Amino acid sequence: MNPVEIIVKKRDGGELTAQEIAAFINGYTQGSIPDYQAAAWAMAVYFQGMSDAETTALTLAMAASGDQLDLHDAVAPGTRIVDKHSSGGVGDKTTLAVAPIVAACGLPVGKMSGRGLSFTGGTIDKLESIPGWNPDLSEEQFRRQLHDIGLVVAGQTSNLAPADKALYALRDVTGTVPSLPLIAGSIMSKKLAAGADAIVLDVKCGRGAFMETLEQARALSRLMVAIGSRAGRNVTALITQMEQPLGRAVGHALEVQEAIATLQGHGPADFQELVETVASEMLILGQAAAELEEAQALVRKAIAENTALVKLQAFVVAQGGDGSVVEHPEKLPSAPVIKQVVAPKAGYVQRILAREIGLTCVDLGGGRRKKGDPIDHRVGILVEAKVGARVGVGDVLCVVHARDEVDAERALARIGGAYQIGDKPATPLPVILDRVQFGGD
Amino acid sequence: MNPVEIIVKKRDGGELTAQEIAAFINGYTQGSIPDYQAAAWAMAVYFQGMSDAETTALTLAMAASGDQLDLHDAVAPGTRIVDKHSSGGVGDKTTLAVAPIVAACGLPVGKMSGRGLSFTGGTIDKLESIPGWNPDLSEEQFRRQLHDIGLVVAGQTSNLAPADKALYALRDVTGTVPSLPLIAGSIMSKKLAAGADAIVLDVKCGRGAFMETLEQARALSRLMVAIGSRAGRNVTALITQMEQPLGRAVGHALEVQEAIATLQGHGPADFQELVETVASEMLILGQAAAELEEAQALVRKAIAENTALVKLQAFVVAQGGDGSVVEHPEKLPSAPVIKQVVAPKAGYVQRILAREIGLTCVDLGGGRRKKGDPIDHRVGILVEAKVGARVGVGDVLCVVHARDEVDAERALARIGGAYQIGDKPATPLPVILDRVQFGGD
Repeated sequence: MNPVEIIVKKRDGGELTAQEIAAFINGYTQGSIPDYQAAAWAMAVYFQGMSDAETTALTLAMAASGDQLDLHDAVAPGTRIVDKHSSGGVGDKTTLAVAPIVAACGLPVGKMSGRGLSFTGGTIDKLESIPGWNPDLSEEQFRRQLHDIGLVVAGQTSNLAPADKALYALRDVTGTVPSLPLIAGSIMSKKLAAGADAIVLDVKCGRGAFMETLEQARALSRLMVAIGSRAGRNVTALITQMEQPLGRAVGHALEVQEAIATLQGHGPADFQELVETVASEMLILGQAAAELEEAQALVRKAIAENTALVKLQAFVVAQGGDGSVVEHPEKLPSAPVIKQVVAPKAGYVQRILAREIGLTCVDLGGGRRKKGDPIDHRVGILVEAKVGARVGVGDVLCVVHARDEVDAERALARIGGAYQIGDKPATPLPVILDRVQFGGD
Repeated sequence: MNPVEIIVKKRDGGELTAQEIAAFINGYTQGSIPDYQAAAWAMAVYFQGMSDAETTALTLAMAASGDQLDLHDAVAPGTRIVDKHSSGGVGDKTTLAVAPIVAACGLPVGKMSGRGLSFTGGTIDKLESIPGWNPDLSEEQFRRQLHDIGLVVAGQTSNLAPADKALYALRDVTGTVPSLPLIAGSIMSKKLAAGADAIVLDVKCGRGAFMETLEQARALSRLMVAIGSRAGRNVTALITQMEQPLGRAVGHALEVQEAIATLQGHGPADFQELVETVASEMLILGQAAAELEEAQALVRKAIAENTALVKLQAFVVAQGGDGSVVEHPEKLPSAPVIKQVVAPKAGYVQRILAREIGLTCVDLGGGRRKKGDPIDHRVGILVEAKVGARVGVGDVLCVVHARDEVDAERALARIGGAYQIGDKPATPLPVILDRVQFGGD
């Protein structure tokens, strides 16, 4: 198969066969198709798009390019392996609360997670604010912990979907990142290679997410659900609010604290709602609950009876972490300088630019500008007044946790600019915007 | 300047500044911008196009990427350097006749030519069928011969527009060849670097050319004329017939013979008309004639008085060739097997698939499948019956010149399939389809 013919066929709007896509991806992974042909092809895909069949073929080819895990032998016979994925947002510590809840309800969770880049944080980075906690497990360790405790969160092994890894790096430097089929293929290939039978996708939507409009988020969700269906997996996509930061905490240790508080039953309302919804969807897909009400009851019970918190502690200890922080979250590293951003005028919070809050956290040292940068786990922001809140002059909008006075002052200014306060009452933002499932609209 | 930003700007339909284009082309030529970024950029240009200003900036940047010739010191003071370029077609030996005529009329012609690829032949290959003739001249030799004889045709020096050379090779393997601004920029950058004050473009149009429709040929012509104007050069584009082969001869030695016959005043009518038109346009642009009638009179005089033939001979000798072939073209290498293709039925020739005739010549050994393939100068086809001709059963359509019987038989079959003979009278095809000049429509 001639790679130029495949590029030209896509350039001219043709539909590539599964064989052509597999040959192209295999050739690229093995090095017989050079970067420049893959770059031209990716740009042609950007302009011409891909059908669901093509996107599925791309996803499967990338998933098949490296190791493909099968975790069934590490769990009870008949157990469905359920994974979750978030497209990334500001203050998104959902996995930290959802995974222990689901595991506490009897459905094992063995998850590969990533590190943060740009204005969104990564689950692995957040967990590393717990002293001693270690994300680097061998496959053997991963399986054993999944079997013994039912809960594992580890860094991604390097041989999972190497084609996606190479193509993603190429897209990053060739202006071909924002292509729905390439985004969907990238996300889904890693999930399929990680061996999930079912996946709950948390597609963030709004100015603090990569999908800024509901239309884009729906299109991406629809596509990923279709890929899952064609690949024989059950996929449910939730489209969730990312116009403002999720919950109160933005920053690594602060977010771990908030996740613990949520498992203790006193998390912020919006985060609590999202956690319960995602956990319930996972229990349904994992056939641990027949329908939503039953799933919600299980989730609430796991919180009320503290079983989720206990599961979190067992997980932290199993991966070398200091389990006492789960009972005493004040033992997590904390920042030396704490300052408040206060309302300059009375009114209602109309808008909080989530991306600005996320970038402020990066400025404070809590994020990476480029791969490999070190992270300060102590710093961050607590968002006290969210959209819809009524504030008086001098009321606290946010609390900044900084490593020094200079950083803190800079953060105060930036956060001040991210808030919009107006006279008219503003409605609190809904948490769940839409739900996309196969066969639905 | 960040190359990704330049790619994204073009991808999103923005107009690149001359600075951005120059930075991108310079970075690519010097190796700081890798092939994969240039490939993504070329595909973005394929989809989004380029304005005349962008295409001119691209052309100038590529022209400036290597040596830029100035031949004025090799010609009489005040002489304008006039070049011609053909976009390539089947049986296109125009330069072989036009250059000696124009030189004989007192306007020096110093031309860089290329070799053939695919179904079209190259001027250098054709001239090499003259025993001893050598295309490899130093710049010093080129200038001296231009000064002494007023006529030089040489192979392109390697340092002319190296950016174009690299980008063309990349486009060839990334599906980004058929982009009008990239085609126009490629052609014009070499002409500008070769130092032409004025250029006559012979844009071939029809199924034997790269531009198959009049619309495409007009768009390419308009664009190249616009580039010339913005770069301060006079450019006239002629859009000429390439639905059927040009003249009778297709094949290297056969085409040289036909060019000589034309300079003797008995060439095929269509080729004669094209030669006179192109030569006249060159004389006008070179200010050797004030207007068309005067130019045509000069051209006809050069043929009638044999001065063009004498100029051809002097040129052949100057470049080491056997000058006697100009008086005795039968001394050119000839094929051992000659066979006729005859009409299977009576009627009028409706269509001759020029590309098929060109590819038959390649099959016979008279063309290259890939760069560097050797060429048999003896073989080819003489097209005896052209579109509009009335033929009886058994009348000769073509004469095949082959190196053996097997090749000849295969050629007969392929040519038979390229001819369409019908009952209805067919009109002979016009030679000149359109003329595009700056300020015209």
